[in-house]
Amino acid sequence: MKIIGKIYSQFKKIENMPIQSIGAKDNKGYIEIFPDFVDGLKDLDGFSHIYAIYKFHKNRKFSLIVKPFLDNKEKGVFATRAPRRPNPIGLSIFRINKIIKNKIYVSGVDVLDETPLLDIKPYVSKFDRINNAKNGWLEKIMYKSKKFKSDKRFI
Amino acid sequence: MKIIGKIYSQFKKIENMPIQSIGAKDNKGYIEIFPDFVDGLKDLDGFSHIYAIYKFHKNRKFSLIVKPFLDNKEKGVFATRAPRRPNPIGLSIFRINKIIKNKIYVSGVDVLDETPLLDIKPYVSKFDRINNAKNGWLEKIMYKSKKFKSDKRFI
Repeated sequence: MKIIGKIYSQFKKIENMPIQSIGAKDNKGYIEIFPDFVDGLKDLDGFSHIYAIYKFHKNRKFSLIVKPFLDNKEKGVFATRAPRRPNPIGLSIFRINKIIKNKIYVSGVDVLDETPLLDIKPYVSKFDRINNAKNGWLEKIMYKSKKFKSDKRFI
Repeated sequence: MKIIGKIYSQFKKIENMPIQSIGAKDNKGYIEIFPDFVDGLKDLDGFSHIYAIYKFHKNRKFSLIVKPFLDNKEKGVFATRAPRRPNPIGLSIFRINKIIKNKIYVSGVDVLDETPLLDIKPYVSKFDRINNAKNGWLEKIMYKSKKFKSDKRFI
């Protein structure tokens, strides 16, 4: 895997970060794409949202059972978005504000400053907007996620 | 990166596959999670949909400019979901039909048989269902994607 760029945010530490993009709507940041990959940004400015796929670079180990930030009961890691996964791959949806040369200015930033970027894909309503999804253990508490912040549990 | 499992589908060749999960609603398949990672599936059965993050394992090279299956005009690769990316990471949303031991039976399978799996994350409406997204060059043609199939261009 190549690092194709970096995500810059206001978050220098893992504690007290928003735990999902939805809790970070007003948090602005930018993605800097490394020069070798800039040509791949052509046509991206027509989209309002992107998936950023990145590395949880502060993650040193993984657990199959975790206590996620939104609950105190243990869950299987694949039923959570917790960072401590077998492969430290993160997925966030950001809103594009503007693209200038190799910088994508975004809102909804819920990642650490200098997070290494692996891929960008356009969010496409027809493919990605699922109606009537069942949200498991998150069904009742997902609406809390605007308020919830991270703590030290995954450091 | 570790391979944590494999995705099994009816597609043995890249040609003539559905190009997105939305074009593959009735295509069933299953994900086999390798024994070392099965405990991470706890609680996943409460969700109806998952993100599968996988490797485009037949991809040997990348292009920053591609002609996607849905258009004949060249696009920046990050404005497409085409497989020929700097990091060969694929992202699909599957519907969970049932989970039995280490097998997740799914619908919406738009990947090659024996695709190596990197991660599973639950689809969470509150985080992932974006209203009023702008879909760039795909805005007018994304509704064709039910019919469109792949061809040999990315082999």
